[in-house]
Amino acid sequence: MSEICLAEIVKKIDSPDPEYLQKARLHTSRLVMPRRALGRLHEISERLSSIQQTLIPQVDKKAVLIFAGDHGVLQEGVSAFPQVVTKEMIRCFLKGGAGINALCREVNAKVKVVDSGIALDLDFPEAINNNALWDKNIARGTANLARGPAMDNKQAENSVLNGFTAASRLLENKVQIIGTGDMGIGNTTPAAAIGSLITGKSVASMVGRGTGLDDKGLAKKITAIEKAIGINRPDPENALDVLAKVGGFEIGGIAGCILACAYNRAAVVIDGLISTAGALIAYKLNPKVLEYMFAGHTSEEPGHQLMLDYLGLKPVLNLNMRLGEGSGGAMAMSVLSSAVRVFKEVHTFEQAQVSEN
Amino acid sequence: MSEICLAEIVKKIDSPDPEYLQKARLHTSRLVMPRRALGRLHEISERLSSIQQTLIPQVDKKAVLIFAGDHGVLQEGVSAFPQVVTKEMIRCFLKGGAGINALCREVNAKVKVVDSGIALDLDFPEAINNNALWDKNIARGTANLARGPAMDNKQAENSVLNGFTAASRLLENKVQIIGTGDMGIGNTTPAAAIGSLITGKSVASMVGRGTGLDDKGLAKKITAIEKAIGINRPDPENALDVLAKVGGFEIGGIAGCILACAYNRAAVVIDGLISTAGALIAYKLNPKVLEYMFAGHTSEEPGHQLMLDYLGLKPVLNLNMRLGEGSGGAMAMSVLSSAVRVFKEVHTFEQAQVSEN
Repeated sequence: MSEICLAEIVKKIDSPDPEYLQKARLHTSRLVMPRRALGRLHEISERLSSIQQTLIPQVDKKAVLIFAGDHGVLQEGVSAFPQVVTKEMIRCFLKGGAGINALCREVNAKVKVVDSGIALDLDFPEAINNNALWDKNIARGTANLARGPAMDNKQAENSVLNGFTAASRLLENKVQIIGTGDMGIGNTTPAAAIGSLITGKSVASMVGRGTGLDDKGLAKKITAIEKAIGINRPDPENALDVLAKVGGFEIGGIAGCILACAYNRAAVVIDGLISTAGALIAYKLNPKVLEYMFAGHTSEEPGHQLMLDYLGLKPVLNLNMRLGEGSGGAMAMSVLSSAVRVFKEVHTFEQAQVSEN
Repeated sequence: MSEICLAEIVKKIDSPDPEYLQKARLHTSRLVMPRRALGRLHEISERLSSIQQTLIPQVDKKAVLIFAGDHGVLQEGVSAFPQVVTKEMIRCFLKGGAGINALCREVNAKVKVVDSGIALDLDFPEAINNNALWDKNIARGTANLARGPAMDNKQAENSVLNGFTAASRLLENKVQIIGTGDMGIGNTTPAAAIGSLITGKSVASMVGRGTGLDDKGLAKKITAIEKAIGINRPDPENALDVLAKVGGFEIGGIAGCILACAYNRAAVVIDGLISTAGALIAYKLNPKVLEYMFAGHTSEEPGHQLMLDYLGLKPVLNLNMRLGEGSGGAMAMSVLSSAVRVFKEVHTFEQAQVSEN
């Protein structure tokens, strides 16, 4: 994939077909129910029709792509869990024992893990052979963003390209909808930094307790992000600069995954704070990616709603979740799937011989 | 079922087992994720554990029970659709062509229809033979509540008992969770009347456009309800009196269904305005039914949120829906099912060998 050029990819992304949106709306108006009585389900199925350029949208083949990375900023005391947990949780994903696995079984979605840049050796050769784990490791974790850039520009670009390649591979294998997931101890820190820089909101408003920080940890997190922004001075208008200076490899991967979906006219469901930080990067590269994106849920992390507001995305679910892993997106897939069923399976007034008003 | 005594049923309803709630919370705390990171999913699975008195709750066998009835108040011009649509939609349910059918296929729930009291002949003998349609017709629609009581006290009690019997039959057949549904042209009028009487909120705040009323229709609806309350003077503390004077047969059926679930220690998922009017009746008979109830969604009908607030129920979904039929409850079943999977399938920290913080 060394020939892939990010600038070229970004340039080629186009909007979904507005004609199918109109056609889909007309179809909805014929369904045997009061006008648009299923509210957001209609909006969802119509967007999917437009994205897939068909009146028979399909979301049967689903996958959640979990990007994993480690974070040098852990040195600043910003996480309640130790770094080894990133690797341990990957093992758990591969064994099917994590939250995301249970949620994906419910909606019949495959789980794939991408090592975007974790710190420890992943000695899971079987998972690599089974295509359950993809090795796209760029480095053994980022550098400490509170002391300098998290990665260099080339690494940032490659992390995005790796995400693009991984998602493209799923789409080539006929996956019809992808959910973005993340794993990386400490990654709410770079996500909040990206959120603050791109939305323009204060660091304090963007930061939460992550996996369970106490007040002292929360203060350290705010200090670390403020130091990172002060030292690195990222340019908020330059998404790759933001990613390189205060980002993470898995966040770059998520941005690349979103670009791949938009590039291939496929829908993508984003999850919480980390995924939406990736979405902000992708959006800054080309705002048209928004038209392919569904916000799975609102996270309990306070910054997440601010990010969604900035993007103008309305989340499908709000269940006070804050797990990450792609959990909110996986659950929202059930709503998308329901929306598509209503669109395709409900009879028209004419078919059903029901009197119209 | 003539020997069933409603007072006896109501008296026998008891709270779910608090010990299982404690045990379930302890189990949640061991799951390999940050403390209670899946928010409401944990609350749901713990409530289901307590309701079913087990640490292996099950919601695999699901059904939506649609109670259908007609309404004499249609004479007041309160609906955008004609009465014949109640029957036509029942035919559509039986053919699998309605919104609720598509949504139930998504969550693998059976759809059953109960004729609680519709106006026209239901000539669907095959559906009766197949147990898809149950004949519990009390009368050919209610009387016009704007001119006198909608039904007499005996009919009100029987409509509740019919719902109780129908739901009990599902539970005897090992159904583990029931969603309440409704069909009845004009039924947002009695539902809003019940809502206003029991919550104490004004009629105007409780009334919406139903299937699509214009301003004139909306004014007629408010007038009809105000007349109904003025003429009939129902006692808000007497649920059967409220049901008889301003209710509907399907609303009584829903109340009975909820009582049956509570009586049999099974969870019940309510839908929108009509189902929640039934829930208000059941709640007034015995407040303990609340502990077996899940609110599927918030409807676009403005009175619905007021009813949920009165009951202290927090809806699972909010997707701007206003279809009825049980649609919001059916969709919420996917969330309940996800919650149960997380509870039962996610590994503990110990099993997963993941470091705790």
